[in-house]
Amino acid sequence: MTEFSPAERDAMDRALDLAARGLGSTSPNPSVGAVILAADGTVAGEGRTAPAGGPHAEVAALTAAGDRARGGTAVVTLEPCDHTGRTGPCTQALIAAGVTRVVYAVADPNPLAAGGADTLRGAGVDIARGLGEQRAGHLSRYWRTAVRRGHPYVIWKYAATLDGRSAAADGTSKWITSERARADVHALRGEMDAIIAGIGTVLADDPALTVRVPGLHRAPLRVVVDAAGRTPPGARVLDDAAPTWIATAAEVGAGADGRVDLEKLLAALYTRGVRAALIEGGPTLAGAFLAAGLVDEVVGYVAPKLLGEGLAASGPAGVTTISAAIDLELTDVTRMGPDLRITAVPRRRS
Amino acid sequence: MTEFSPAERDAMDRALDLAARGLGSTSPNPSVGAVILAADGTVAGEGRTAPAGGPHAEVAALTAAGDRARGGTAVVTLEPCDHTGRTGPCTQALIAAGVTRVVYAVADPNPLAAGGADTLRGAGVDIARGLGEQRAGHLSRYWRTAVRRGHPYVIWKYAATLDGRSAAADGTSKWITSERARADVHALRGEMDAIIAGIGTVLADDPALTVRVPGLHRAPLRVVVDAAGRTPPGARVLDDAAPTWIATAAEVGAGADGRVDLEKLLAALYTRGVRAALIEGGPTLAGAFLAAGLVDEVVGYVAPKLLGEGLAASGPAGVTTISAAIDLELTDVTRMGPDLRITAVPRRRS
Repeated sequence: MTEFSPAERDAMDRALDLAARGLGSTSPNPSVGAVILAADGTVAGEGRTAPAGGPHAEVAALTAAGDRARGGTAVVTLEPCDHTGRTGPCTQALIAAGVTRVVYAVADPNPLAAGGADTLRGAGVDIARGLGEQRAGHLSRYWRTAVRRGHPYVIWKYAATLDGRSAAADGTSKWITSERARADVHALRGEMDAIIAGIGTVLADDPALTVRVPGLHRAPLRVVVDAAGRTPPGARVLDDAAPTWIATAAEVGAGADGRVDLEKLLAALYTRGVRAALIEGGPTLAGAFLAAGLVDEVVGYVAPKLLGEGLAASGPAGVTTISAAIDLELTDVTRMGPDLRITAVPRRRS
Repeated sequence: MTEFSPAERDAMDRALDLAARGLGSTSPNPSVGAVILAADGTVAGEGRTAPAGGPHAEVAALTAAGDRARGGTAVVTLEPCDHTGRTGPCTQALIAAGVTRVVYAVADPNPLAAGGADTLRGAGVDIARGLGEQRAGHLSRYWRTAVRRGHPYVIWKYAATLDGRSAAADGTSKWITSERARADVHALRGEMDAIIAGIGTVLADDPALTVRVPGLHRAPLRVVVDAAGRTPPGARVLDDAAPTWIATAAEVGAGADGRVDLEKLLAALYTRGVRAALIEGGPTLAGAFLAAGLVDEVVGYVAPKLLGEGLAASGPAGVTTISAAIDLELTDVTRMGPDLRITAVPRRRS
């Protein structure tokens, strides 16, 4: 097992903090953090990925470090890219700056950008991988999953009472969960590149689908899955608070049922640079995504309330008997004020 | 604040363990634990409440202690009773044994049995209250609530998927939760004096409503809420595994809707010695109990599975709009293998 110095460990913690801060602002690029340690082990510079088209984290950190990078170590949350996109490859920038060691947390799964470690090694740079791997893996899961697969990481978020209702019998749902839980939803939205709702929800609730968090980098794309193009001209999603895409069957393509083909929808979103998307409602759309096996993560905000009747959060997902239930694994359970946030991911099929 | 010796603290821990072990076997009496410390502070004897009609914890502990009780201390989880029921008052037994100090955790709310502390004090016994109060309060909450109010403590237990379904669209529900969670349900049932199901559940699922735990003291009473007496003669609840009461509207009394009057049902169960009752299903019965404000605790076993459709755990509870939702407070969230157990109690109305 590779050994890491205390200075490298501290630098990785800092780099991960920087990466976390950039989540939601960097797509189609990953949010990366980098710290340059001078030859004497002190911090020479740090940086994080700028919004798409701006410099990568390594370049930002090298710029901050200047001459002090020579003979030093770059500590980066993701394997440096070897690819000339809108910016030059980070590998060349590191070599040119005279960095002699690169420590990174997780490998780059992007076939276009991978190979950075090999290139650096070929240039005589010492390479060490795996420091901070777990947290980096978690932070970059949206992006890595999306890039590997060619369509966005999809989170289905819902709010429900303890007895599984997302709205009362009269349709009211404001508010099921507490202010604390709702603030967390906004933080989650802030990490997303797109927020998806079905036309049913738009017609019934006229949601804004915006993000209200201080210091937001950029507003996620609002997507209405609207096969027949029924979104009313006065709908809130059409205001100028954020960009919106009304995804019709005519534009995206339709399944046999005439509904928008969700795989094609996700492929189209990927092409538009979306790496992480949140399904916000309603039950029909959630059910359709679940039925298609297109949900990567479920985040439920559960309030300790009971309604006894009302609307469910999920709709038909093609499961009619208990043995066919969609099997998840709990990955996190956290109190959110009086409520509970439950996170789960699909179990890998064996 | 009263001071307690280390020996008394240890003794209370032990007494509470003894009380916990007796839960579900002592109704209509509370499950109490008692430890007698000799004058030199060593343990002279211990005991717990025997099944109804047998000796109380204090008497069992005094018997075990014999002469060593003289000049010693009795450490008891509940205020000693001052009442001659099927057994003589514990206060007199303690005085006769020459105990000079009594330490207890919580007061006896039973108007018939209370006053024990005063009686002991009048006989010159030193009294100290409050040691182990929190755990004792929790352990004795079924009994204390029931006695104060004259009807049993009622727990509504359900199992559901993350999206709030208790059965799939085809009615199948075996098994939503894991073996670990189901074992916990049996442990919970083992603490109960009665297990209540509605006739709908009996007709649909033919449940046994029995308790499968090793070393069970006695089987809880099975209660079918069956207004019109439709329980089939061959129903499993009518086997000889446990006593069963088919509670009809004719016997119990009916509400304006012709259904069994649930307040009268609970009063009748209290008269039969039931202090803790579990509602096991189905949604109609749960909704009716919730609507009547007769649920003291909700225990939900939530499996990280999704069904998209199917049956809900709860049925109409008279709540049609979100602002009228029944408000609970989470008291415990525990992982049960892959599942989650969520416990909540109604918020006190201000």
